[in-house]
Amino acid sequence: MKIHNQDIESHNAPRIAKHQRAFQYIRSEVPEVEAVIERLQQFQIAIPSWALGTGGTRFGRFSGKGEPGTLEQKIEDVGLLHALNQSSGAISLHIPWDNVDDATKVKELASSLGLSFDAVNSNTFQDQDAQELSYKFGSLHHVDPAVRKQAVQHNIDVINRGIELGSKSLTVWLADGSSFPGQLNFREAFQNTLSSLQEIYAHLPEDWKLFVEYKAFEPFFYSMTIGDWGQSLLLANKLGPKAYTLVDLGHHLPNANIEQIVSLLLMEGKLGGFHFNDSKYSDDDLTAGSIKPYQLFLIFNELIDGLDHLGWDHATGLGWMIDASHNMKDPLVDLLQSVEAIQIAYAQALLVNRSALKQAQAKNDVVGAQEILQDAFRTDVRPIVAEARLRSGAALQPVRMFNDLEIRKRLIEERGENTVATGL
Amino acid sequence: MKIHNQDIESHNAPRIAKHQRAFQYIRSEVPEVEAVIERLQQFQIAIPSWALGTGGTRFGRFSGKGEPGTLEQKIEDVGLLHALNQSSGAISLHIPWDNVDDATKVKELASSLGLSFDAVNSNTFQDQDAQELSYKFGSLHHVDPAVRKQAVQHNIDVINRGIELGSKSLTVWLADGSSFPGQLNFREAFQNTLSSLQEIYAHLPEDWKLFVEYKAFEPFFYSMTIGDWGQSLLLANKLGPKAYTLVDLGHHLPNANIEQIVSLLLMEGKLGGFHFNDSKYSDDDLTAGSIKPYQLFLIFNELIDGLDHLGWDHATGLGWMIDASHNMKDPLVDLLQSVEAIQIAYAQALLVNRSALKQAQAKNDVVGAQEILQDAFRTDVRPIVAEARLRSGAALQPVRMFNDLEIRKRLIEERGENTVATGL
Amino acid sequence: MKIHNQDIESHNAPRIAKHQRAFQYIRSEVPEVEAVIERLQQFQIAIPSWALGTGGTRFGRFSGKGEPGTLEQKIEDVGLLHALNQSSGAISLHIPWDNVDDATKVKELASSLGLSFDAVNSNTFQDQDAQELSYKFGSLHHVDPAVRKQAVQHNIDVINRGIELGSKSLTVWLADGSSFPGQLNFREAFQNTLSSLQEIYAHLPEDWKLFVEYKAFEPFFYSMTIGDWGQSLLLANKLGPKAYTLVDLGHHLPNANIEQIVSLLLMEGKLGGFHFNDSKYSDDDLTAGSIKPYQLFLIFNELIDGLDHLGWDHATGLGWMIDASHNMKDPLVDLLQSVEAIQIAYAQALLVNRSALKQAQAKNDVVGAQEILQDAFRTDVRPIVAEARLRSGAALQPVRMFNDLEIRKRLIEERGENTVATGL
Amino acid sequence: MKIHNQDIESHNAPRIAKHQRAFQYIRSEVPEVEAVIERLQQFQIAIPSWALGTGGTRFGRFSGKGEPGTLEQKIEDVGLLHALNQSSGAISLHIPWDNVDDATKVKELASSLGLSFDAVNSNTFQDQDAQELSYKFGSLHHVDPAVRKQAVQHNIDVINRGIELGSKSLTVWLADGSSFPGQLNFREAFQNTLSSLQEIYAHLPEDWKLFVEYKAFEPFFYSMTIGDWGQSLLLANKLGPKAYTLVDLGHHLPNANIEQIVSLLLMEGKLGGFHFNDSKYSDDDLTAGSIKPYQLFLIFNELIDGLDHLGWDHATGLGWMIDASHNMKDPLVDLLQSVEAIQIAYAQALLVNRSALKQAQAKNDVVGAQEILQDAFRTDVRPIVAEARLRSGAALQPVRMFNDLEIRKRLIEERGENTVATGL
Repeated sequence: MKIHNQDIESHNAPRIAKHQRAFQYIRSEVPEVEAVIERLQQFQIAIPSWALGTGGTRFGRFSGKGEPGTLEQKIEDVGLLHALNQSSGAISLHIPWDNVDDATKVKELASSLGLSFDAVNSNTFQDQDAQELSYKFGSLHHVDPAVRKQAVQHNIDVINRGIELGSKSLTVWLADGSSFPGQLNFREAFQNTLSSLQEIYAHLPEDWKLFVEYKAFEPFFYSMTIGDWGQSLLLANKLGPKAYTLVDLGHHLPNANIEQIVSLLLMEGKLGGFHFNDSKYSDDDLTAGSIKPYQLFLIFNELIDGLDHLGWDHATGLGWMIDASHNMKDPLVDLLQSVEAIQIAYAQALLVNRSALKQAQAKNDVVGAQEILQDAFRTDVRPIVAEARLRSGAALQPVRMFNDLEIRKRLIEERGENTVATGL
Repeated sequence: MKIHNQDIESHNAPRIAKHQRAFQYIRSEVPEVEAVIERLQQFQIAIPSWALGTGGTRFGRFSGKGEPGTLEQKIEDVGLLHALNQSSGAISLHIPWDNVDDATKVKELASSLGLSFDAVNSNTFQDQDAQELSYKFGSLHHVDPAVRKQAVQHNIDVINRGIELGSKSLTVWLADGSSFPGQLNFREAFQNTLSSLQEIYAHLPEDWKLFVEYKAFEPFFYSMTIGDWGQSLLLANKLGPKAYTLVDLGHHLPNANIEQIVSLLLMEGKLGGFHFNDSKYSDDDLTAGSIKPYQLFLIFNELIDGLDHLGWDHATGLGWMIDASHNMKDPLVDLLQSVEAIQIAYAQALLVNRSALKQAQAKNDVVGAQEILQDAFRTDVRPIVAEARLRSGAALQPVRMFNDLEIRKRLIEERGENTVATGL
Repeated sequence: MKIHNQDIESHNAPRIAKHQRAFQYIRSEVPEVEAVIERLQQFQIAIPSWALGTGGTRFGRFSGKGEPGTLEQKIEDVGLLHALNQSSGAISLHIPWDNVDDATKVKELASSLGLSFDAVNSNTFQDQDAQELSYKFGSLHHVDPAVRKQAVQHNIDVINRGIELGSKSLTVWLADGSSFPGQLNFREAFQNTLSSLQEIYAHLPEDWKLFVEYKAFEPFFYSMTIGDWGQSLLLANKLGPKAYTLVDLGHHLPNANIEQIVSLLLMEGKLGGFHFNDSKYSDDDLTAGSIKPYQLFLIFNELIDGLDHLGWDHATGLGWMIDASHNMKDPLVDLLQSVEAIQIAYAQALLVNRSALKQAQAKNDVVGAQEILQDAFRTDVRPIVAEARLRSGAALQPVRMFNDLEIRKRLIEERGENTVATGL
Repeated sequence: MKIHNQDIESHNAPRIAKHQRAFQYIRSEVPEVEAVIERLQQFQIAIPSWALGTGGTRFGRFSGKGEPGTLEQKIEDVGLLHALNQSSGAISLHIPWDNVDDATKVKELASSLGLSFDAVNSNTFQDQDAQELSYKFGSLHHVDPAVRKQAVQHNIDVINRGIELGSKSLTVWLADGSSFPGQLNFREAFQNTLSSLQEIYAHLPEDWKLFVEYKAFEPFFYSMTIGDWGQSLLLANKLGPKAYTLVDLGHHLPNANIEQIVSLLLMEGKLGGFHFNDSKYSDDDLTAGSIKPYQLFLIFNELIDGLDHLGWDHATGLGWMIDASHNMKDPLVDLLQSVEAIQIAYAQALLVNRSALKQAQAKNDVVGAQEILQDAFRTDVRPIVAEARLRSGAALQPVRMFNDLEIRKRLIEERGENTVATGL
């Protein structure tokens, strides 16, 4: 199915008066609204192809219906999201979950829906049918050079696939680690990982980036070979200027101050981008902003401060992506909620009175600094985000429109009940 | 395959002299060794049927070979373990992962291997093929009475199956919870769970126990309806004298003092038993004692103190079970390691000089109390545990014997490479 | 110093037009505003006497100036807060930090400022000069009955002091625990605590409540004798109908779902009240709502749901108190910020569309339930809170007024630079 | 008081036969015992001067008696420890807690007791009486250059003091951080810290080291400016070859894999040394090995692996120090227990069969690798540690000898009951 301009207009028309009232009010109170809207309109959050189907845990997976069974259908799904919010204009593929048989055709389809291809992702944490050697004991860090070689080659293949599609970055996430003390020599595992990444790096086109993701823990692990930002940054620095650290919000030990990590990575010029999601206990991959919205705001607060310092050119190179799992909700609705929550946090952070904040900090006015941040966070910015959507030709209320159009029902009619998306 | 007495003897013979030397030494140093050996010989740890195959995470599962494909083969596997260590004389089934077509035949097989049937486990955290209603949004706590009824009925079926096999307890573990704030009314979820459990409880034979397991968190959850020992105890108290709390060592928030929980549950007469495993970060289901052996010792220290207080009769009713997942190691070897680690912790705790400890506590002699515990823990009790095995007709070194006999190789020859055990 | 009505009016006058504009807007959008305002006006948050001076850590304490050096000055401080926000109409005393020589005079002073006396707090976690036996190894749980007796008597003294002042509840927080495995017999420590509390309970007037506070951990502790809500509830149930559990938001293990605990305690009719504060890592005693404002909202969401169920009469018996420490900020300003954040969370929770939420829950509409909560939380309720203050005769912007009036400067002039408040 | 050789001999004589029996047994089982003893005899653990008195929390401090009131008495205390165990041959001073009026005399005293001076420690987390500017809002990271300058100068003074005493390293631990979001610009705080450290580094003698300590959190903090090993390493790398990271075992987020951090820091040649202690929940500063002895063993396991790789020359430059707090126990006894636990972990780690471990790792023999580590850890190495003491002229059982000699009683007689050590 496709969403047409007149669908958007039909959705917006009965809501426009109420929206205008709200927007007029906020514009009268917050003069800098126009600058915020401009930033919001430019801001695109990539949708990972593997988030379009129902996720699961090791215990159960309760599949939805009408899931995209092919890459074309996944692109179509992202196209629907983008039509609804004009903020999801990129898709991030996962190889080999996504088979790209005809890159030209795939690119044309994406392009027709206004989509570009974000970072490509390799997968060396699962064994594939045709695969010679197993990743049971890791991939890039493996003690056996033959396994490392196979994993390196897979990453090179993914880069090549990405080049065909117009991607500009490779994200490497590894489940390499160990389950028991003694299993692994940490130093050699690190060195093996580094040398594998160096081989991959050598195949990276000049204008590409390599995102090195870290993760504190996985169920059943005792150690992770790229476990925290310190290790990722160490690798990125040893690799060279095209290597960066990627921050997934769910990949930290309890209570970690993620916003400080973001600030320091930006300071070092080594922040590659984000995997947005939220979590209560561990890597829960919940909807962005659904558990700790103030933390999401604080992260954007650091991003803006860092970009003000580094120059906003830097922002265009950052990878902004959702990486959530959808076990309970319709994946498409969940993604709309995540994008909205991210935009809200971004808009709030853009409203922070930065010169006042700097002054408060300069005199250790702790009360004042806190009030400045809270003032921005407590502001109801939803009309600003809606206005940005309106101006970009999107729906005032994307979730509502999704429901009203009965999009899932129509997808089920098109695709059938039992299609299953590849991925998590 | 089967392990015969002469296999055990062939394994032990070349090792007996070294063992005797070690045992003589420890016996000369620790006079209470005989009492410890007696307790160890009586101590049987149940093996869960679902732990006999390779586990996995939501990302990957790297299957082993020669896994038990049928219930009979699972019983045979536990029989092998028991032959090796004479301490795994019970099996715990999971319905419907384990189909019991002919209970009499199954009982005869188990009995021929010296095995009894421990707690039966229900499963309402996955949907089964023939099932009418889904557990996507929970089971015993579900808002829809029809789903609750189905889940209750399943538990009653499991009890009935257990009666046929000679089990004396039902373990209920639920993945009931919520992923997002607002999704669930906590109070109503608790009340629904209580009323469902009351219906199950009503079907419990007079000499049965109901074990209510709790778990602090699962990946992708925001709340668990039976999340901690407080909630489980509340339910157990409301249910009645046959209901108990079951402690899985991996089901706690970070840094929880599990030994204190064990002590208080014993005090209340409501400790049902254990699921033994170990963990570094979350519910990692690693080999017992592989990460925090001192914690395991401290738990046994509380158990012994509590049983001394309550009377050791109480111990026979406790459920002692391993609940680990085996992703990296051969499941059978892993289980042998877990049993050994549990026995070591138990033996160390039995060596604690309790009258001296009580005296130290009575005068707040913190140094002394610590030294008494450390003295027991630092003692090398392996010869004592080996002696207990020797006297029971088991192998001095079960893991070694497993390897030397090439048991897995022989199981693969019998069963083939591609058998997959049902379960996790 | 004293704040007079005309001070309030002078502060409000230049701000009233802007406020009216904001309030008109929100009233036009949210019809239930009047009911919310009524609840807010009734809502009083007690100020602990020990929070009026600068706190510290074990490393350093950086004193402020003009701190209240006497109980009269502490009452005067709370009077200032109450004059500014008309929501801090109670003070909670800590004995023996607060010496009450002449209860009648003290009551008159408080009454003249519109203040009543909330829960009285005992202190058996520090040794006092005149004290015979030490609490080094605990108080109510102590192995030595003489120490327990001394601690019980202190609590009885505190009750008697509270009766003179018109308090209606006693809060017991213990630093009783242990630092090393073996130091304590958990069971006996619990039983000693119970029997001590029973003696205290026996002295409780008919219309009083006993609040049993729990705490997961303290620096340098290995176990806490009242460590979680499960233990506190066990004690409260054994004590009787006047005993309740008190929830301090900072007293939990990492990632605990506090809102669920609140819901269950209300369900059991055993929620006594709150110590409000916020934290990033442990018991940080930071300003309420400064780190996890969404969690604070979710707690109020459960409170309202529970009170709707139990009846709002129950609310009047709940203890609402701030328990923060003020190391960096002026304590009075910090308390104003905490009260404001609590009121905001309360107002947001009152805006939740409860019938829609129940419907969404009834059909497992996870998206809808989340949107309903987020809709309330994302609403800018500050004009509603300000309107409630305005109608009660308080300042539109209490923090601003505190600064503009240079209240601290005037207190320093009155009291001198080097006064130090008793307490933390 | 002083412990003489004949005191040691009187203590050892009645115990020697039992010890010999135990040692003969272990020597017969473990052939590499002699090499282990040699390493143990060389291994000296520095005692911090601030650990010789009773510590406290922000709530209470329960002082002991006979505490060292002067630097001379502190040195005397360490001399007693060293006489008892011959493994505490260094003291680490904290300026200005320790006033060094006459360095020559102090050195002579230390030398007469066989003690050298380990790292000197600066203190910019408390305000001192004579100090011009306050560290309330931090020191080396402070927004005000004048405060930074004062803190830098203090560190330079400490270096100068250390030079006089023969120290070779400066440890910098900062309580610099923030309590509330917004209070601090993370990037500028880092840059200020770096530039302050650079000034200090410039004053470092050629043969000195600068240890940059990190800490994840403090009570009442929201961020720490040197919060994890990643930040410390970043600073150390920017500073130069004399700067290293110092690992305090209690300074991590929950569940951190400290042994992996140790391994990577050694790999980078940037591990400076340790502050040994143990913890259950946060920075509890408990006796080393009292809570997680297996973790302590795993850390030593990584150290030995790293030193085998780097060369053991590197070990002589590592700072080995206890940093615990003694609230419940006699500080001297507690320190003896810590040293013993550290030596036990070291001895166990030295027993690990490294060539077998490497082979197991090379073929992903997870079971085998685990068994190799557990085999070493489960060995009762206490006779080996005692033998090392015996050969060095120390007591077979230092804690027992401390008690039997009634050392504290004699110190109280000498010093009086009410002496209080400076420090925590």
